[in-house]
Amino acid sequence: MIKVGIVGGTGYTGSELLRLLALHPQVELKAITSRAEVDQPVSDMFPALRKKVNIRFTEPTLESLKACDVVFFATPHGVAMAQAAELVQHGIRVIDLGADFRLQNTEEFAKWYGMPHSEPELLKQAQYGLVEATREKMKNARLIGLAGCYPTSVQLGLKPLLTQDEALIDEQNIIADCKSGVSGAGRKATVGSLFSEASESFKAYGVSGHRHLPEIEQGLRAMSGRPVQLTFTPHLVPMVRGILATIYVKLNDKGKSIDLQALYEQHYNNEYFIDVMPKGSLPETKSVRGSNYARIAVHQPQGRDTAVILVVIDNLVKGASGQAVQAMNLLFDLPEHMGLEQLPLAP
Amino acid sequence: MIKVGIVGGTGYTGSELLRLLALHPQVELKAITSRAEVDQPVSDMFPALRKKVNIRFTEPTLESLKACDVVFFATPHGVAMAQAAELVQHGIRVIDLGADFRLQNTEEFAKWYGMPHSEPELLKQAQYGLVEATREKMKNARLIGLAGCYPTSVQLGLKPLLTQDEALIDEQNIIADCKSGVSGAGRKATVGSLFSEASESFKAYGVSGHRHLPEIEQGLRAMSGRPVQLTFTPHLVPMVRGILATIYVKLNDKGKSIDLQALYEQHYNNEYFIDVMPKGSLPETKSVRGSNYARIAVHQPQGRDTAVILVVIDNLVKGASGQAVQAMNLLFDLPEHMGLEQLPLAP
Amino acid sequence: MIKVGIVGGTGYTGSELLRLLALHPQVELKAITSRAEVDQPVSDMFPALRKKVNIRFTEPTLESLKACDVVFFATPHGVAMAQAAELVQHGIRVIDLGADFRLQNTEEFAKWYGMPHSEPELLKQAQYGLVEATREKMKNARLIGLAGCYPTSVQLGLKPLLTQDEALIDEQNIIADCKSGVSGAGRKATVGSLFSEASESFKAYGVSGHRHLPEIEQGLRAMSGRPVQLTFTPHLVPMVRGILATIYVKLNDKGKSIDLQALYEQHYNNEYFIDVMPKGSLPETKSVRGSNYARIAVHQPQGRDTAVILVVIDNLVKGASGQAVQAMNLLFDLPEHMGLEQLPLAP
Amino acid sequence: MIKVGIVGGTGYTGSELLRLLALHPQVELKAITSRAEVDQPVSDMFPALRKKVNIRFTEPTLESLKACDVVFFATPHGVAMAQAAELVQHGIRVIDLGADFRLQNTEEFAKWYGMPHSEPELLKQAQYGLVEATREKMKNARLIGLAGCYPTSVQLGLKPLLTQDEALIDEQNIIADCKSGVSGAGRKATVGSLFSEASESFKAYGVSGHRHLPEIEQGLRAMSGRPVQLTFTPHLVPMVRGILATIYVKLNDKGKSIDLQALYEQHYNNEYFIDVMPKGSLPETKSVRGSNYARIAVHQPQGRDTAVILVVIDNLVKGASGQAVQAMNLLFDLPEHMGLEQLPLAP
Repeated sequence: MIKVGIVGGTGYTGSELLRLLALHPQVELKAITSRAEVDQPVSDMFPALRKKVNIRFTEPTLESLKACDVVFFATPHGVAMAQAAELVQHGIRVIDLGADFRLQNTEEFAKWYGMPHSEPELLKQAQYGLVEATREKMKNARLIGLAGCYPTSVQLGLKPLLTQDEALIDEQNIIADCKSGVSGAGRKATVGSLFSEASESFKAYGVSGHRHLPEIEQGLRAMSGRPVQLTFTPHLVPMVRGILATIYVKLNDKGKSIDLQALYEQHYNNEYFIDVMPKGSLPETKSVRGSNYARIAVHQPQGRDTAVILVVIDNLVKGASGQAVQAMNLLFDLPEHMGLEQLPLAP
Repeated sequence: MIKVGIVGGTGYTGSELLRLLALHPQVELKAITSRAEVDQPVSDMFPALRKKVNIRFTEPTLESLKACDVVFFATPHGVAMAQAAELVQHGIRVIDLGADFRLQNTEEFAKWYGMPHSEPELLKQAQYGLVEATREKMKNARLIGLAGCYPTSVQLGLKPLLTQDEALIDEQNIIADCKSGVSGAGRKATVGSLFSEASESFKAYGVSGHRHLPEIEQGLRAMSGRPVQLTFTPHLVPMVRGILATIYVKLNDKGKSIDLQALYEQHYNNEYFIDVMPKGSLPETKSVRGSNYARIAVHQPQGRDTAVILVVIDNLVKGASGQAVQAMNLLFDLPEHMGLEQLPLAP
Repeated sequence: MIKVGIVGGTGYTGSELLRLLALHPQVELKAITSRAEVDQPVSDMFPALRKKVNIRFTEPTLESLKACDVVFFATPHGVAMAQAAELVQHGIRVIDLGADFRLQNTEEFAKWYGMPHSEPELLKQAQYGLVEATREKMKNARLIGLAGCYPTSVQLGLKPLLTQDEALIDEQNIIADCKSGVSGAGRKATVGSLFSEASESFKAYGVSGHRHLPEIEQGLRAMSGRPVQLTFTPHLVPMVRGILATIYVKLNDKGKSIDLQALYEQHYNNEYFIDVMPKGSLPETKSVRGSNYARIAVHQPQGRDTAVILVVIDNLVKGASGQAVQAMNLLFDLPEHMGLEQLPLAP
Repeated sequence: MIKVGIVGGTGYTGSELLRLLALHPQVELKAITSRAEVDQPVSDMFPALRKKVNIRFTEPTLESLKACDVVFFATPHGVAMAQAAELVQHGIRVIDLGADFRLQNTEEFAKWYGMPHSEPELLKQAQYGLVEATREKMKNARLIGLAGCYPTSVQLGLKPLLTQDEALIDEQNIIADCKSGVSGAGRKATVGSLFSEASESFKAYGVSGHRHLPEIEQGLRAMSGRPVQLTFTPHLVPMVRGILATIYVKLNDKGKSIDLQALYEQHYNNEYFIDVMPKGSLPETKSVRGSNYARIAVHQPQGRDTAVILVVIDNLVKGASGQAVQAMNLLFDLPEHMGLEQLPLAP
């Protein structure tokens, strides 16, 4: 049994980890920490876990966590950075669901996150974690900076196009128009996330610059080996879970000459969690809700030279806690889908 | 392995059966029927099932179903009535999620459902199925008329009060103010169930008389052994899944003298799916979504003599397909919770 | 032109006052105060008001408000209490949308609101404001404690029954099962009001005791002239606006002998904003959204002796800001519906 | 007083016309037709109109309509085509909210709408109606084919860029990623528009080709006088009302050299209903709900050469019935905003 700890268990990615790990046949939950909630039963905060999760919150100390084989950080940026080094030194694997170990460039980190990176050496050892793209490098990593939610959707959507030897598209001119449910903003009380504000409305945000932009561009460049430029516009959808990425690429002559549907199907043929849907499909977020699947469809409207790629994931599962469990399975040599077989909840 | 058939697989209770049965370790899905969709892959209609459910719809004939050990009817009233007899004769167990075998009195059936009951003899053999209330009688039943969604919530909420030797409340004066998500209305296209009609609004319906009223009163009388009278008001909540029953009872002197919280806790102590929450709790439908749990809380506001019992279930799971699987497990001597261990999806 | 000031303009009742007053032909908006937002344009916070409302927030001082004929307090309890006396002394009419001047009994106030009432003398001069019930007494009031949202719905629903010389119902045994949209909780950032918490879920709250209970009982006693006892259960609906009150009363012999429909129709015959719907109607909150109407329907299910009264209002309009404007019209001898003629927005 | 008729009053654009026209000071509603609902009070179908709209549905015949000065068709395509000629011959102005008189090219119409155009001659007399773009030509039109909802949002967003002498952008490579509330699908009962299908989900539709594409391209070409090519992807948002168009354009050197914010502000300076928001703004659909406003913001992320234009409208108002009333005001020489001054309903 893998002994698991969770730092920061009071947010949505924390409770989602609990939901998934509670049924994982190879996991023993040892500790979940929250400074503010020490000694409170986790199920008092999350009644959905009653009858199945009986653990209480503890202090976020090494003491609480040192018996673990792996520790998940389900925390805002800045927290894992401060605590991960100690755990790694003790031989504990760390999977950070936050942003501290995603960007390789500390200047970029400082620019986008408004704080210096306090662990540049540790960052060098960290491995970016988007399983379908970085699987091999993750296997022996001691510290994983798990991909963000939007970056997961956009990178999965573009990977078959960008991992070819020769460019198929104008790689300087990619547009990712992304839409996320409100749970992406977390469980922090803010006016903008109130029901009465977010419900029955729709808006873009972060248009002039969102923290996931450098992460996505870094990932796409790594895939392509060539410079890549993206316009990324996130939007807030009045729903709880789900991301749809609508990606626009301009095909070049090479790109126009190939069968995109076949390219995607072949590329993802062996991926358990990637569902390349039949030609003409229109994936909806509900079809992946609560599950670790990504569903992808490729369109080429009017036979013109702009291709439209549609990707749906559950932002809290494949975009966060599910992918974290998938990464843990990978680290511990278990089948990647262990504990992740639940079917989506629809309707 | 239990060989399972589903008649009427294109509605929400049908797709929910598929979601649950696909992961049930002792079930082999043999057939799912839909006259209109013959030969279509089920996952074309329900993309959430892609990669896990590969079966196609077949004709609703004995031929399709005769290899099954058990057949679920996930159909409007009138359908099971017409087809169940033949299956029962072939030794196939039948679990009807519809209304055909709920009311014992054929005149009541005719009055509330607007059609005569065509199988009065078969009806006599049928057993009403609300597992926590009728478990023993269900075990050897060949045909189960599964409890409706509202009746499940109201009966679970009142059972500890009504199964005492002596009345604890004014049993002639019970009020059940019930609220259901829109999926309770099914997957049929009607104006009233449109997003633009049901969203951002709230209303009562069936106030002057709803088909679940006689079913609930029949069940409560069976529990109490005394006459019981109920005012039942269903309401439509702008959400997909979930029922909250707010039940008002007038305590008599005997009722005022006992500890209601203890009564409920003891009564349901051994029930896997019933969660009597601590005093003062306010159960929310989200805490059971996608799961087979019922959560119950008991209040006695201002210490006055009206008690308020709150019950939440997922109408598609404990109120329909989950309870159907629970019943199947019971019929085939499996642990009741097999295949039903998923945790609720919240948020 | 009536010169109007608003104290506390950053919540939903404040912005709703602005929406209504901006089009009122006899109103000149002089000041809207918010300590935190001084000098900010109101429309920066509420972009829906752009192009129509050009005023900026000011300090909540007498200086800001003394040029006004009437001042609305759209503030949490405690604020109006502290500031109203000074305004009243300056001859300014005050309409408090908060709770400070609703309960006549200061001990009750202290018990339910957790703070002593600092202005017991001023409270004696204050008039409770539910226009259809207290119109005559309001006309010359200098200070109005406007009815709360739930109290408005419940009192309007019961008034025809309780204002008869002889009791028609068991007045000790009334049940008001009420459901409100999330805007009733205000614009304050709290976890419970987050979209991801409140959406796709339903729950009761305040079951063991809600501040509106003593207010409603006080109002009902004033109507009836006899003791009245109520069980009041509020619920949270995943929608922004709207209240539905489902009220259960036990008819006595006198009550059973009369035509309830006729009673309600006659009682409200001359009320502009009260719509007694035809027999069998099922009012939905959407049918009053954005408007000052209350729609009421009366049912007597199965011809039994429990009557069910359904009332819908928009909690932010008839339950708060619309009723406030209606009260202002009354104070200044204008037609009650001036500035309140907008039709409901549906769908 | 303008005598007004409405053909097809049972859909959302029909009921929205009623909501707006009921308060229009210069309108007398003479007739509203619905073959299926003849003699039924309109307010039985739309209880939100009770107490204000007392008219009944009549047969859609010339008899019903010939006393009108103007007739609105709030009908699916094909209906206005069949009936408009007769009305026009009688000197009645016709405003078609449907699609019959939008596309000038009958072959395009046949291709996209799956039926031949039966009135090619009448079509030649028809004027496309997007007031801010085609005002002058509309003034004397006898028959107006009102712009569709998406086309209104996209054309308003691009007009300042495309009406310059010299191209500012790559006009062959425009992307409009559009999102609409479910009311855009109308009041017809279809499975896809059910609450349980559309709620808590998000998807694209019509990706391979949507009827509004040729209409938008026709309008943009008319503005630019040059060839224009668009990729248009509509999406379904789980809300009732509202459209957000996120438009991506590639600036050329000329475009990069100008101040886009100033361009937009100057261009729309005199338009009552167009609100060019300050730099950096993020318009949300809620800020225009129920009103005839369009709010627009212009962004140039990271100073790169892709500009992002955001446009919000209420699809049922500026995208349909409100624009229809605006057009009527124009035809009858009234101020364009008469009857359209309601402020948006937010929250």
